[in-house]
Amino acid sequence: MRKKSILLAGATALFLSTPALAYNHDPLALQAKALQDDVAYDIVEGLTTEIGARQAGTEAEARARDWAVAKLNTLGFSNVRSEPYMMPTWIRGKETAAVISPFPQQLAVTALGNSGSTGDKGLSAEVVYFATLADLVAAPEGSLSGKIAFVSHAMKPTQDGSSYGAFGPARFVGPNIAAKKGAAAIIIRSAGTDYHRNPHTGNTNFEKGVTPIPAGALSIPDAENLERMFARGKPVKLNLLLTPQNIGQQPSGNVIAELPGSDPSLGMIVIACHLDSWDLGTGAIDDGAGCAIITAAAKQVMAAGQAKRTIRLLWAGAEEVGLWGGNAYGEAHKGDNHALAMESDFGADRVWRVEFNLPEGASALADQVTTALQPPGIGRGQQKASGGADVQAIIKNGNLAVIDLQQDGTRYFDLHHTPDETLDKIDPEQLRQNVAAWTTVLSIVANSDADLTMAPAE
Amino acid sequence: MRKKSILLAGATALFLSTPALAYNHDPLALQAKALQDDVAYDIVEGLTTEIGARQAGTEAEARARDWAVAKLNTLGFSNVRSEPYMMPTWIRGKETAAVISPFPQQLAVTALGNSGSTGDKGLSAEVVYFATLADLVAAPEGSLSGKIAFVSHAMKPTQDGSSYGAFGPARFVGPNIAAKKGAAAIIIRSAGTDYHRNPHTGNTNFEKGVTPIPAGALSIPDAENLERMFARGKPVKLNLLLTPQNIGQQPSGNVIAELPGSDPSLGMIVIACHLDSWDLGTGAIDDGAGCAIITAAAKQVMAAGQAKRTIRLLWAGAEEVGLWGGNAYGEAHKGDNHALAMESDFGADRVWRVEFNLPEGASALADQVTTALQPPGIGRGQQKASGGADVQAIIKNGNLAVIDLQQDGTRYFDLHHTPDETLDKIDPEQLRQNVAAWTTVLSIVANSDADLTMAPAE
Repeated sequence: MRKKSILLAGATALFLSTPALAYNHDPLALQAKALQDDVAYDIVEGLTTEIGARQAGTEAEARARDWAVAKLNTLGFSNVRSEPYMMPTWIRGKETAAVISPFPQQLAVTALGNSGSTGDKGLSAEVVYFATLADLVAAPEGSLSGKIAFVSHAMKPTQDGSSYGAFGPARFVGPNIAAKKGAAAIIIRSAGTDYHRNPHTGNTNFEKGVTPIPAGALSIPDAENLERMFARGKPVKLNLLLTPQNIGQQPSGNVIAELPGSDPSLGMIVIACHLDSWDLGTGAIDDGAGCAIITAAAKQVMAAGQAKRTIRLLWAGAEEVGLWGGNAYGEAHKGDNHALAMESDFGADRVWRVEFNLPEGASALADQVTTALQPPGIGRGQQKASGGADVQAIIKNGNLAVIDLQQDGTRYFDLHHTPDETLDKIDPEQLRQNVAAWTTVLSIVANSDADLTMAPAE
Repeated sequence: MRKKSILLAGATALFLSTPALAYNHDPLALQAKALQDDVAYDIVEGLTTEIGARQAGTEAEARARDWAVAKLNTLGFSNVRSEPYMMPTWIRGKETAAVISPFPQQLAVTALGNSGSTGDKGLSAEVVYFATLADLVAAPEGSLSGKIAFVSHAMKPTQDGSSYGAFGPARFVGPNIAAKKGAAAIIIRSAGTDYHRNPHTGNTNFEKGVTPIPAGALSIPDAENLERMFARGKPVKLNLLLTPQNIGQQPSGNVIAELPGSDPSLGMIVIACHLDSWDLGTGAIDDGAGCAIITAAAKQVMAAGQAKRTIRLLWAGAEEVGLWGGNAYGEAHKGDNHALAMESDFGADRVWRVEFNLPEGASALADQVTTALQPPGIGRGQQKASGGADVQAIIKNGNLAVIDLQQDGTRYFDLHHTPDETLDKIDPEQLRQNVAAWTTVLSIVANSDADLTMAPAE
């Protein structure tokens, strides 16, 4: 029953929307062409091979910006430039963890972004086990004095990535909570879903006035090994060595490029990804793939001839460490004539769902997009589109319309923020399906003169 | 057609062999019981949790011997003891690799056993690429002076592990060849089949008179990244830092246990595994699983009542670094009354094939074993059984009969000698199938008074 009604809705959308819109482009023809795309793979192959890891605020990110400017110029985009800003920068040091007793052995650990340092000699202390973050929250104040908290969890793969929201807080806020309870340090089970000895890094944040404690993530096999040690009932003592440093304000920047439209009075479409990556992998998945997808799609639209609306590409800097690039863009460009924002930042696997946040008057446009996305296997979701991290500021500042092309995240958290985040993890066919989906949406929206002005935010 | 003839051969074997043998045990009843075994998992879970990595010649291997003696005593085996010997020991130091130009980035590297040291400052040199070991062999003498050789290959997974024989020589002999051609160092694509940033270690050997050069393995994603850099046509310069040391003669040892038979005049069955592991993983697969399988099977036989032949368990030391344990056993016990040798040292995945090297007069015994192994899905192979690494010396010294239970190696070289070699990689159901196969063979052979004396070696 449900299936039938969905099919009917699709057919209705097709009949309703087709006559309502005018096109310079044939979106389905562009979609078919984009399914043969090689530009996206070329971009992510080049970025991972010629730059690799590109942590925000480092010289590697600066080299990546130069690389991006050159690549976007070569591809024929207009107004390609870097927009610099400064940001506080934290860098990794040495990192080891070793069980001292009762079962001496090394554990695979990595520091979380903003972790404090143990000093060069490391820190030896008893470990207190918490099966969940809620258990840590429930621990009495002061009960962790001088100890290392160990927080585990049960994160499992989900297609929509919702498990990250459920279990990611062990990383996002666990260290701050442990610090406030007097812990000397914290280790967490990586916020990930794989079974490789590659811990997942990622930022953690300490409240103002809370001194950062050393905070590391264990690989999942190591976290489970440690849990087995606790199950044997003896006190567990660990030596933790993490020597990250804060190196102060460093240069970062956004890279921007444009595909000018024929009618500047129509608001532009800003499409985003982020150029920075964590330092452990080569940033193939997070978010080289995103930059590859949005750029290849814009290039497909470019090849079809000028559209009405300008498409602006934002390869944001410094997403991983606090959305510095997206915030800088949002501030610098809040006066620009934006109409709609989109972002690709969830790997390279196929788009499975489209979601909208458009004004009510643009429902025909949403129906048109929905229908055009059916050939590559994409259904319409019922959630309100919210955009990616790098367009949050400009969406808020400009009260922008949003379309989300949701990617399959089933294996995303096997790789996210690990050393394993490398080119070989990209499936070229699924990458092309992303380009086709993006090309479809851009070709429709960039040629639409529908009013995309959102009602004032409540 | 082929299938039919195989079925008929099995049926014939059943009718021929059943009346020819006498049993204290019912092998198929024991097999069914062994399919419910929990002893094997308990052993490998305990060894990896309570000891973890246990490199030969280190104090971790000594702790593992104590653990093994305690466990084998607890399980009720007789004559449990360590048999010590001394051996030269090489230990890992710091290890990093970084492309200096044209595309600066870190590569994941690990030192091969017996690698030389670069010294604490590392070694910076141009890299010379060889797509195969044959290409390195073909390089002119002296052409590598002062350079780092990089040897790649195309190893792919195989069920019988034969790809290791085909592509492993890049590790086994590549460094010696490069050293003789004047290379300052060598890096190889790991002898493995996975795509994780976990390089595969393993021993390499230098001929007498050849000074060991620094020799490392890159993870496969890193090796492919380096190949892509070469494909761009510019010279590649690398800094390699490997600081392993030889720490001289250190204690190692074998652990031996027995299940005494009722008729000491019948030669005993020696069943082997190795206790040592490489230092990077926890030795779950190589070879904690093997010790777990042979021991759990012997325990199943023990529970069924005394058999005719003695079964001796050899948990060999120092296999990975040169078969020191197997050689020490072969020398110390060459006068013992052995009849047959078997080993489990190829992971924890299911047995798919049985092979024999028995005297001609014992063909009914081979047929009986073959038939009894059909319920757990095991077919008979046509290769001559040769035994594992730790029983090579005693097979040669004693001219012993051999039965091989070949395990599925399709995913073995995803894990072999990497940090990823952890408990979670063991499938409890496949582990139990191994125990059932071993229990079946042991219960038949240990109750057989067939003459297993091999014809003199040619």
